[in-house]
Amino acid sequence: MVPTLQTLREAHDRIRPYIHNTPVLTSTYINSLSEASIYFKCENFQRIGAFKARGGFNALLSLGKDRLTQGVTAHSSGNHAQAVAVAAQTLGVPAYIVMPKTAPKVKQAAVAGYGAEIILCEPTLEARESTVAQIVEEKGAILIHPFNDYSIIAGQGTAAIELLEEVYQLDYILTPIGGGGLTAGSSLAAKYLSPTTKIVGCEPEKADDAYRSLRSGELKAHKSPPKTTADGLLTTLGDKTFGIIKDNVGDILLVNESEIIQAMRLIWERMKIIIEPSCAVPFAALLRNKDLFKGKKVGIILSGGNVDLGKLPFE
Amino acid sequence: MVPTLQTLREAHDRIRPYIHNTPVLTSTYINSLSEASIYFKCENFQRIGAFKARGGFNALLSLGKDRLTQGVTAHSSGNHAQAVAVAAQTLGVPAYIVMPKTAPKVKQAAVAGYGAEIILCEPTLEARESTVAQIVEEKGAILIHPFNDYSIIAGQGTAAIELLEEVYQLDYILTPIGGGGLTAGSSLAAKYLSPTTKIVGCEPEKADDAYRSLRSGELKAHKSPPKTTADGLLTTLGDKTFGIIKDNVGDILLVNESEIIQAMRLIWERMKIIIEPSCAVPFAALLRNKDLFKGKKVGIILSGGNVDLGKLPFE
Repeated sequence: MVPTLQTLREAHDRIRPYIHNTPVLTSTYINSLSEASIYFKCENFQRIGAFKARGGFNALLSLGKDRLTQGVTAHSSGNHAQAVAVAAQTLGVPAYIVMPKTAPKVKQAAVAGYGAEIILCEPTLEARESTVAQIVEEKGAILIHPFNDYSIIAGQGTAAIELLEEVYQLDYILTPIGGGGLTAGSSLAAKYLSPTTKIVGCEPEKADDAYRSLRSGELKAHKSPPKTTADGLLTTLGDKTFGIIKDNVGDILLVNESEIIQAMRLIWERMKIIIEPSCAVPFAALLRNKDLFKGKKVGIILSGGNVDLGKLPFE
Repeated sequence: MVPTLQTLREAHDRIRPYIHNTPVLTSTYINSLSEASIYFKCENFQRIGAFKARGGFNALLSLGKDRLTQGVTAHSSGNHAQAVAVAAQTLGVPAYIVMPKTAPKVKQAAVAGYGAEIILCEPTLEARESTVAQIVEEKGAILIHPFNDYSIIAGQGTAAIELLEEVYQLDYILTPIGGGGLTAGSSLAAKYLSPTTKIVGCEPEKADDAYRSLRSGELKAHKSPPKTTADGLLTTLGDKTFGIIKDNVGDILLVNESEIIQAMRLIWERMKIIIEPSCAVPFAALLRNKDLFKGKKVGIILSGGNVDLGKLPFE
């Protein structure tokens, strides 16, 4: 069932002991450059370096330790893997994380650091799904989907709850949109707590499934495997996230690759904080659409800060 | 005269409207790795991206607008240039900043962005000093020394005041040490407000003048022009900073180049904040001397976050 206000509140209470209420930062320079008042909700400072800790904890804590004695499993090359691993470690249940064998060693090390067992597979969606299916069958582990799951959506929505409770009367909240968990959760938080706040999902042109889905009113897949520096936004929406987004999200804005890198660099240089490319997409969208946001109060959820420092896109 | 507690308090009150009371951050991971409780005072989030804004504002505000109608001048390739420029802009007086013509374009742009006039010179200390002397003579501008000046020292000491007022009973405060303004100012703050807190200056092995000066009891110059990735720490102490440091600083700890880069990387990866190499020196010193700091409450002043993103030392 689509999370209600009560579901969101319960999710927040459930995960609060395990997550950070991350700071909201502002920058005079960036406000002056963009001619808007921007409030950055810093989920790059969240545990595991990304908002996904919220959904991971909510999913596992909602299921409860007793139902998870056989463990949990997930396939992810990125932040969801760490989120499930840290939540499983906290509950004291086994985690089996399927990662493509091309996943950076540093990400594998982070997952292993939370005590999870890593199962490497070929870097295709088919291989990932079949490997996870095998683990579900053999170990009896429960699969935790990265976004198309109401407990994940409710968990991700708690970042917007905190932002809306800290900054009143935001005109907009901008989020990056990949699978749609953060966007869907944020849109529900705004609907219940601040109905005048419009939610806008922000997406790379090179992975524009959410844009085409919202425009057409039906779920669209990628035409071909997307390639974007915003590698956290490669997935397409699911039916649950799309259902919520269709009803509650005002628009999807697109940005190109150089806009993403430029926005990322501006935040690094001016705010001295580390954000990953996917995380720069909403600020890039704001800069591209300055007229739309001029004079407005805009919340931006900085989704994460997990980057490979040896492979940065700066010149 | 060496700043008294009252001088420090007055400096703080004077600059407070123009600077940030920067946040103090902690990291569970870093505490566990270092087996100490570390409180990072984030001057990388300070205006101009470094603590030097404190000294710059205090120096100019102490002199007062009426004495500065002919303007101020300074030579610096780095943070002091921006500090003097922003303070001059705030007071509405001219700033003439002498920079070596090899200074990165991004730093020149930042100084120009504060409305200062940039005078480029050959990249030698002699050229810098003679160019500044000429400006003093021709324009009647007042020279603002980057560290060997009591109003600068008092300004820099306000970061430690804030840290000591936020975190009680620190066993240590660690600072990077170049010209010694931050270390001297911090040592006075601790002496007056928290006498049991030991101040430790941290220095690259390749620019170890403060280490040799404190050990020998007399001011030592560099044997040859130092080369270190911590390029904010190339200068030697001055007589005013050394006088204070000799009386109030417990020790100087040295670190090598790879320790600096490793410490910098750890803070970037785990705390998602950007610090410059000089700024990583105290944390590197703590990691190198784990036994000394084991179980202690340690404040570290993160001095700045101005790096050239196109030239990072990571692999």
